[in-house]
Amino acid sequence: MLYKRFNDTYMLRIDKGEEVMRFLQAFCEQENITLAQVSAIGAADSAAIGVYDLETGKYHREDLPFFMEIASLSGSVTEMNGKPYIHLHTVLADQQNRTHAGHLIEMAVGATCEMFVRVLPGEVSRKKDEAVGLNLWTF
Amino acid sequence: MLYKRFNDTYMLRIDKGEEVMRFLQAFCEQENITLAQVSAIGAADSAAIGVYDLETGKYHREDLPFFMEIASLSGSVTEMNGKPYIHLHTVLADQQNRTHAGHLIEMAVGATCEMFVRVLPGEVSRKKDEAVGLNLWTF
Amino acid sequence: MLYKRFNDTYMLRIDKGEEVMRFLQAFCEQENITLAQVSAIGAADSAAIGVYDLETGKYHREDLPFFMEIASLSGSVTEMNGKPYIHLHTVLADQQNRTHAGHLIEMAVGATCEMFVRVLPGEVSRKKDEAVGLNLWTF
Repeated sequence: MLYKRFNDTYMLRIDKGEEVMRFLQAFCEQENITLAQVSAIGAADSAAIGVYDLETGKYHREDLPFFMEIASLSGSVTEMNGKPYIHLHTVLADQQNRTHAGHLIEMAVGATCEMFVRVLPGEVSRKKDEAVGLNLWTF
Repeated sequence: MLYKRFNDTYMLRIDKGEEVMRFLQAFCEQENITLAQVSAIGAADSAAIGVYDLETGKYHREDLPFFMEIASLSGSVTEMNGKPYIHLHTVLADQQNRTHAGHLIEMAVGATCEMFVRVLPGEVSRKKDEAVGLNLWTF
Repeated sequence: MLYKRFNDTYMLRIDKGEEVMRFLQAFCEQENITLAQVSAIGAADSAAIGVYDLETGKYHREDLPFFMEIASLSGSVTEMNGKPYIHLHTVLADQQNRTHAGHLIEMAVGATCEMFVRVLPGEVSRKKDEAVGLNLWTF
């Protein structure tokens, strides 16, 4: 892993071929990060994103099996069941000038992904909320 | 309100049904926040966004009365006329895989909204600029 | 230049007519900023964005010669060849409710651009990677 810490902030370079969700999960476990704010840009070889459906409690999944710019990638690291819990949303742009956005399910890095992980001192865990069907922040 | 402060940063969970602009305004008044950087993701039940028109000095308003992912929501809290002034832009994704973006006029939270409010020590106020018709940062 | 520093963070107001990439480059040189995280919103009179093509090593350029909201603008300041190196991605929205996103090549500010530049203590340089054809972070 290629990264460096500056005060409260890690800068991570995620290379072509890595899967972002798995990579960040492993990174947080290795560095014992339990709480952080995440922001990144880069490029993807492919991604799967989703838009939630409150009625079914599932995501409308959209598979995007082509090269895209990661125009925005942001979210958080919190904690659930004793493990880092990654939650990111993204905006992507493909080579036909179309934009795609939503909840990040998975993404393979296409050229590089330049990520800031700003660590916060503490812990926020998540708990399944039955009304909305999602794991919400608990304080 | 569900939130917790970690050093300079508040993490806020805004629940289904809350209107984001009003909620954040009330939160900043309650916590005496005069200056902050804001970033969030989440889901919306509906939103109204706009794109400014320099000629008319008004926003082209787009009403989006359906469920969407909040792929990006960012901006600032500054101060005007002695009150917190919220300015946010957003990128949204609906269940037909369309993206919508612009200046946030209003937004009802759809499932949850996970927001970081990083407080800065000081004050920046706004003043109406007659040339562009908007309230600009003054230092 | 209109800006003010609060601890590690500069708030910059970039006015109508300024070109964002050149402006931020000059600002970083003037303030001796070698490493920073950047986030902004605002409006643009025009912009050129791109989506990279790994096969040709070039960007598919899209010229957008009209007024747009800057819904998201984020990235970093690092260093290359002894100079600040600006890398930003953006999401834009035009007055026909279309969204545009990608790597920022250039952008003229349309009404105002409100930017946060959070300085990190240290240096990260870039080096051309022959496999992907881009200047990647080196640690």
